[in-house]
Amino acid sequence: MWIKTLREDDKLKEACGIFGIYSNQEIEDIGHIIYHGLYALQHRGQESAGIAVSDGNRVNSYKGMGLVPEVFAPEVIELFIGRIGLGHVRYSTTGSSLLANAQPLVVKTAAGTVAIAHNGNLVNADLLRAELEEQGSIFQTSIDSEVIANLIARSGEKDFVQAVAKSVARLRGSFALGIMTENKLIGIRDPHGFRPLCLGKLDGAYVLASESCALDTVDAEFIRDIEPGEMVIIDENGVRSYFYTEPQPKALCIFEFIYFARPDSVIDGMSVQLVRNAYGKRLALEHPVEADLVIPVPDSGTSAAIGYAEQSKIPFGEGLVKNRYVGRTFIQPTQKKRETSVKIKLNPIRKTLAGKRVVLVDDSIVRGTTSKRIIQMIRDAGAKEVHLRISSPIVNNPCYFGIDISSPEELIGATHSVEEIRREIGCDSLGYLSMEGMGLCMGVPPEQFCKGCFDGCYPLDVSHLDHKKKSIFE
Amino acid sequence: MWIKTLREDDKLKEACGIFGIYSNQEIEDIGHIIYHGLYALQHRGQESAGIAVSDGNRVNSYKGMGLVPEVFAPEVIELFIGRIGLGHVRYSTTGSSLLANAQPLVVKTAAGTVAIAHNGNLVNADLLRAELEEQGSIFQTSIDSEVIANLIARSGEKDFVQAVAKSVARLRGSFALGIMTENKLIGIRDPHGFRPLCLGKLDGAYVLASESCALDTVDAEFIRDIEPGEMVIIDENGVRSYFYTEPQPKALCIFEFIYFARPDSVIDGMSVQLVRNAYGKRLALEHPVEADLVIPVPDSGTSAAIGYAEQSKIPFGEGLVKNRYVGRTFIQPTQKKRETSVKIKLNPIRKTLAGKRVVLVDDSIVRGTTSKRIIQMIRDAGAKEVHLRISSPIVNNPCYFGIDISSPEELIGATHSVEEIRREIGCDSLGYLSMEGMGLCMGVPPEQFCKGCFDGCYPLDVSHLDHKKKSIFE
Amino acid sequence: MWIKTLREDDKLKEACGIFGIYSNQEIEDIGHIIYHGLYALQHRGQESAGIAVSDGNRVNSYKGMGLVPEVFAPEVIELFIGRIGLGHVRYSTTGSSLLANAQPLVVKTAAGTVAIAHNGNLVNADLLRAELEEQGSIFQTSIDSEVIANLIARSGEKDFVQAVAKSVARLRGSFALGIMTENKLIGIRDPHGFRPLCLGKLDGAYVLASESCALDTVDAEFIRDIEPGEMVIIDENGVRSYFYTEPQPKALCIFEFIYFARPDSVIDGMSVQLVRNAYGKRLALEHPVEADLVIPVPDSGTSAAIGYAEQSKIPFGEGLVKNRYVGRTFIQPTQKKRETSVKIKLNPIRKTLAGKRVVLVDDSIVRGTTSKRIIQMIRDAGAKEVHLRISSPIVNNPCYFGIDISSPEELIGATHSVEEIRREIGCDSLGYLSMEGMGLCMGVPPEQFCKGCFDGCYPLDVSHLDHKKKSIFE
Amino acid sequence: MWIKTLREDDKLKEACGIFGIYSNQEIEDIGHIIYHGLYALQHRGQESAGIAVSDGNRVNSYKGMGLVPEVFAPEVIELFIGRIGLGHVRYSTTGSSLLANAQPLVVKTAAGTVAIAHNGNLVNADLLRAELEEQGSIFQTSIDSEVIANLIARSGEKDFVQAVAKSVARLRGSFALGIMTENKLIGIRDPHGFRPLCLGKLDGAYVLASESCALDTVDAEFIRDIEPGEMVIIDENGVRSYFYTEPQPKALCIFEFIYFARPDSVIDGMSVQLVRNAYGKRLALEHPVEADLVIPVPDSGTSAAIGYAEQSKIPFGEGLVKNRYVGRTFIQPTQKKRETSVKIKLNPIRKTLAGKRVVLVDDSIVRGTTSKRIIQMIRDAGAKEVHLRISSPIVNNPCYFGIDISSPEELIGATHSVEEIRREIGCDSLGYLSMEGMGLCMGVPPEQFCKGCFDGCYPLDVSHLDHKKKSIFE
Repeated sequence: MWIKTLREDDKLKEACGIFGIYSNQEIEDIGHIIYHGLYALQHRGQESAGIAVSDGNRVNSYKGMGLVPEVFAPEVIELFIGRIGLGHVRYSTTGSSLLANAQPLVVKTAAGTVAIAHNGNLVNADLLRAELEEQGSIFQTSIDSEVIANLIARSGEKDFVQAVAKSVARLRGSFALGIMTENKLIGIRDPHGFRPLCLGKLDGAYVLASESCALDTVDAEFIRDIEPGEMVIIDENGVRSYFYTEPQPKALCIFEFIYFARPDSVIDGMSVQLVRNAYGKRLALEHPVEADLVIPVPDSGTSAAIGYAEQSKIPFGEGLVKNRYVGRTFIQPTQKKRETSVKIKLNPIRKTLAGKRVVLVDDSIVRGTTSKRIIQMIRDAGAKEVHLRISSPIVNNPCYFGIDISSPEELIGATHSVEEIRREIGCDSLGYLSMEGMGLCMGVPPEQFCKGCFDGCYPLDVSHLDHKKKSIFE
Repeated sequence: MWIKTLREDDKLKEACGIFGIYSNQEIEDIGHIIYHGLYALQHRGQESAGIAVSDGNRVNSYKGMGLVPEVFAPEVIELFIGRIGLGHVRYSTTGSSLLANAQPLVVKTAAGTVAIAHNGNLVNADLLRAELEEQGSIFQTSIDSEVIANLIARSGEKDFVQAVAKSVARLRGSFALGIMTENKLIGIRDPHGFRPLCLGKLDGAYVLASESCALDTVDAEFIRDIEPGEMVIIDENGVRSYFYTEPQPKALCIFEFIYFARPDSVIDGMSVQLVRNAYGKRLALEHPVEADLVIPVPDSGTSAAIGYAEQSKIPFGEGLVKNRYVGRTFIQPTQKKRETSVKIKLNPIRKTLAGKRVVLVDDSIVRGTTSKRIIQMIRDAGAKEVHLRISSPIVNNPCYFGIDISSPEELIGATHSVEEIRREIGCDSLGYLSMEGMGLCMGVPPEQFCKGCFDGCYPLDVSHLDHKKKSIFE
Repeated sequence: MWIKTLREDDKLKEACGIFGIYSNQEIEDIGHIIYHGLYALQHRGQESAGIAVSDGNRVNSYKGMGLVPEVFAPEVIELFIGRIGLGHVRYSTTGSSLLANAQPLVVKTAAGTVAIAHNGNLVNADLLRAELEEQGSIFQTSIDSEVIANLIARSGEKDFVQAVAKSVARLRGSFALGIMTENKLIGIRDPHGFRPLCLGKLDGAYVLASESCALDTVDAEFIRDIEPGEMVIIDENGVRSYFYTEPQPKALCIFEFIYFARPDSVIDGMSVQLVRNAYGKRLALEHPVEADLVIPVPDSGTSAAIGYAEQSKIPFGEGLVKNRYVGRTFIQPTQKKRETSVKIKLNPIRKTLAGKRVVLVDDSIVRGTTSKRIIQMIRDAGAKEVHLRISSPIVNNPCYFGIDISSPEELIGATHSVEEIRREIGCDSLGYLSMEGMGLCMGVPPEQFCKGCFDGCYPLDVSHLDHKKKSIFE
Repeated sequence: MWIKTLREDDKLKEACGIFGIYSNQEIEDIGHIIYHGLYALQHRGQESAGIAVSDGNRVNSYKGMGLVPEVFAPEVIELFIGRIGLGHVRYSTTGSSLLANAQPLVVKTAAGTVAIAHNGNLVNADLLRAELEEQGSIFQTSIDSEVIANLIARSGEKDFVQAVAKSVARLRGSFALGIMTENKLIGIRDPHGFRPLCLGKLDGAYVLASESCALDTVDAEFIRDIEPGEMVIIDENGVRSYFYTEPQPKALCIFEFIYFARPDSVIDGMSVQLVRNAYGKRLALEHPVEADLVIPVPDSGTSAAIGYAEQSKIPFGEGLVKNRYVGRTFIQPTQKKRETSVKIKLNPIRKTLAGKRVVLVDDSIVRGTTSKRIIQMIRDAGAKEVHLRISSPIVNNPCYFGIDISSPEELIGATHSVEEIRREIGCDSLGYLSMEGMGLCMGVPPEQFCKGCFDGCYPLDVSHLDHKKKSIFE
């Protein structure tokens, strides 16, 4: 009758975050550096976390279910001693029995110990898995990393780097990969560059991270983004770059900018926050309205709301206060009280809203249920009008590349017109950012992004895939 | 070498939050209602939480160390059955051995079972305790509630309400109290009204809460604030009001508005957020500066920063991103890296700050160490100038009424001039809100507030008190 | 449907164990010594454990629910530094909410800090508690120790030792007490000596323990038993003895010898094991039978079974094997399979029992359900005959002095004749040790024991007590 | 300085226990049955436990570190629904990072899901592992089961049973295996029959167990032992038997009778208890002595001590009492007090031992340190003479087949003569059971046992093995 957790459950979910580090000398505090790097990437995965560290000869690893500080007690962090490390945070379906699925996956092969951390989703994992099973491979988990590990082990290549290159060339789908051996760290981005991955430097060490905010957090200097189709090999010879495949059209996931990435990250040269701010400004041009106050749905709507306020000259304000303590283990009210449950997280400020015409800015609408409750709440607090502005186009297609859209049928944008949505969620007007508008804000040609969740055009053939089983393997 | 927690440790600390409920009929979900009420008050105390519930005949209680959702598993919450309840969240020095100090304190007396929850600090607790011990009382905890319980038990009054009235009349200091028996709920505010307490209604039940945001969260309707020196008795006869003492000058703690209370609360008729917004506007008038961007230290500086931006016409923006996952169990970097530890919580957005003249708005300065690091971080991100604006006067005196200022010597405002502080923390200009300015923002005569931490004028004689031992009893 | 624990639930339960230590110098490893002392007394209480230690000025304490090694992590044990200590293990009704009832109770009084550990049951606790409440005392727990602490605090005596003496003189019932202040350790036995308490020496320190086996475990030398009505005060002046009351008839609980105490303990000069061995020999004289094998119900029937075998010249053997891992958290089979659940703990050895006429020796019969299942199991293993011999008389009366006999109606001995019991539990013959026989084995006059559970004759007036509420206060 | 656990650390360690069940219909309480089966086998492995259950289509599994009741909460046990199950308890080097090594190992292969549980030690695991790695296999654990799973997956056989047969034919060493697929249960014993495995029946279901005591516990009927080199396949067609190799000399581990197995088990037709009793009788013939009392070192010496007493006509008694609560999480005293630590577990009964000439019976001597302390303790308790009798020959060789003898150098029997041992451990006389005597007690030709730890003659070539790395793979 009572559900244990209250998450951002009307939000799209990302898959993973990666953080790696390499030095020729032992790194003091290597455990702490990776810990803090993963902490900065926590928004990319809250279900499990893992760290593997090599001292050049031997790999030690530790994984667990939960947030980074729940998994890693200080005494565990201090046990890591070495000069190369790889960490991972993961979003997944819940369940302690899935500890086996936590990453990095650490395996012993003829070439030594290999640790693999993956962010993304392979669209040919089932086929590769079946092929490998036919050849006698056994699988202990349901993660893509195990497929990749088996491909590498069976590549037939003597040289480890060649084995990896040959293996990743067989992968289809989205993948940002960190691969560690006893004496190497390799970073790989898929040919389309769906998921971000960047390179930094911290004193004498090189750092790999899913987002630049993780570099900032550990005081590393940003060097550059890994390019689509690129593989960087970091070892005693420094950093080498290798392109394992023919160039492919770039298709960076646009949702990284809309919602997933932290606003302080810079991805492929674009500041996430500035892009969001631009979305808000553009939204004000596309969907102007006479109003007294612009307020965000905190925290994901804030950057766009500030942009909307700047462009429209309507004052920006806080109309909703978020309970900063709402976390993973929150108890949700009974079903019958579900409508008011949003109040546990968000509370409207009556004195600020009463009698006002309010522009409410949010990043996206998934099922629409939360939007409906928030709008009602703002009305109950005395607002005269509520105009909802969404800083992205209508989400109405499944994702095959790592976003957990459980089913397109659940997407209100897939089944309702804008006017129907407006009526359903109860706002006075509703405006989505246009595809064109979104494109104009990016500063680079819009063709360089995957926008499949908006327009159903995917950079890879997905016709053989069951959309019911698209992003999580099991 | 590594410290386990990273808190808002350069912030002043509050003592407690109270939530009570009374109905003549059994309240379905009584445990959940109190749980959510306490959750909304979590910012007032993160060290322990407790709930006591009466079914009219028998009181059951459960307490534990930690945040509300850490203490109360769903299965525990569902065990509470009854029609009267009292909950408490507490800030205190840490340590599981202090579970005994968690509240509500539940005791058996000749008059039946009594549960007591206290927010505040008694300045005559030592004297009363010694007197009670002389009379043969024994003490199992170091909390003020136990002193109050003993006073009530020894009052000599037959009538319980008279016993309470007589007892609280002997207390000196700050106290908002919730007292529950098998069949009554009593709410009391000290004669000066240091700490807030308000009354609400939820269906047929009455609700008491430290802040109105807790009423909102459980969907209760706000009725009124309890008045200084007032005692409201809620029982089968409804709500009775009783003034247990002669009227005293009102002295509501001004820091509730500056930092402690949630912005969505309304205290004694004043919206916390609107007051903070007014502080920001006033600050812009008192300390104007030419600049390109106004940014808050999130989250406590946000409301004032918006006010400053509105008044100054300088654009408001986000320049610092807070890691939303930083919580209680975070591992802090080693001492030598302490300077950069603030980055784990806050990350500057380079592309937003570079080349800008920035107005940074925060609510107060305690030791100044965090301000210094944030300013440096903003400069490192490329800001040309950093002008710090503080939406409160200089904190330079101890508090004897519930705020944990460990020692005035640690207050940079007590030992440095404004110019010295500016140099020490490294900003281009520094402006504090003036006492007069603060007063003008309140909408009621400034004499109605305790501003002792700013001016050293306390509404009660504190000359006998050791300031080293001022707010926490043990 | 499934019950969480499988205890010795067809056995009578004891209340508590006490262990104290005093030295004029700091005792290295004081935490470990008390820990091991309590470990040796674990059989006397498995529900909670606590330790309080004084360094001469200040008392630190730690308590928790569970077995000694569950409550005390090594890091906690090492925190104890001091020269005086008091520990306690407790049997009670379960529930983490009863942590407040764990002992020692540590309170602050006008005379300083006092820690109290109690083994036994006061028959006038209700009266004393009501009287104290009338005088204004408040109660936070439901344990007798809190009554005693209040009596001491209110005694009106200036001298602490006199205050204790005056207070314990008012107690009726069974009590072995350990009382510690910042600089003293006091051991007290009730005027009838219901519960054991002895004194030992360990290097320069004095030790108090419920049973001598705890002295052995910490390598302390046994000095003597505390006498009924005696109070020993251990402080910087050494050990003083004081009799706080007129001599009363001695009434040591005979069940300590039958079942409670560890066989390696010596109580009031009598070896528990030798007494049990004598019971077995006497039983063989009183209830001889022609048989092939004497087997015990392990472990409580072993000593008597060896005695029976010696006397009868029938070979002793093991016919039942006990699973040594059965502990507190065992899952019990469903109700319908309850009959076979005894097999989880005990397994008959077919090859040893098949075709044999077996004498089965157990210490007592409570409800008879376990006996019935064991007998059936032995028959199923092929035994031709099963003759049950019980090394104590028939238990058919409640206990008011610390044994948890939930209700006399549940005692098969109170409602059935011996022949009826034999038929009910299904053995070929059944023999109980006679009262006279039991007396003959003790080596001292049988009048010196409380045998109320056998004959209903109690050394104190219990006519005002509700037998439904006899041993546990709440 | 303080070590966390006090185990039977001067005892040889076994590796594992297996329990499987198969039915054509869903088995009510399948989780509970396996749980209780594993509980009965807990003595064979205390480090981790795991259960896998199939409903005919899908396999669910759960594993954890610790004792069976620690790993399996009631709510977990009730989640298992199905008709086929396989459970395992494991002894191993400690460490939560080794959860990955818990069994059963559950893998997905081209042939479906396979679960494997192994008791024993392969002497060619390293070779097979290297060979498999060369072929592209990856290894995630360090257990033999993963080698076996890879062999099966790569066998090239279409038929699963043939694949298993072909794979196990390549294994050298000791192995009792349980293998489960979605619809089959297979039990296998190595060609020499080092480790026991038996078959039983429970209502309509078949049961496999390492020892018959597990059959008894779940009320299953014993059918027969699996034979060396035999593979039994249990599926919808009933039970089929298949011999996958040429007959080899039988080599059942004699230590199962001496110490490992529970006394209530019957292995290959021999009652463990009767064998131990016979050892004791034989020992009395080989090493008679004039004495007053025969006492065992509880619990492992009990059966032999009873035998010695019967044969010698010297009375059997209890001279040492074992603390029944000593378990896994016990804190050991500091190194300097190590000599007395044995008292925490065992306490001598002074009144029973004083002035006596004592025969002390134990099952074996490993390092001799515990024996020395026990003998000293018995002397300190007043015994006039202590004659130690060991119910097995001298252990002086490593084991390659599953017993954890960390190093032969640590075996006192490998480096000292009997007289030297006697002097070292301080007894008046010392007698070991002779190899011939041990053989005479077995009832079957002594050649049918592996007695390598006594005579260094192993049934398999072990010359290539490093004795430092003999029983545990990692």
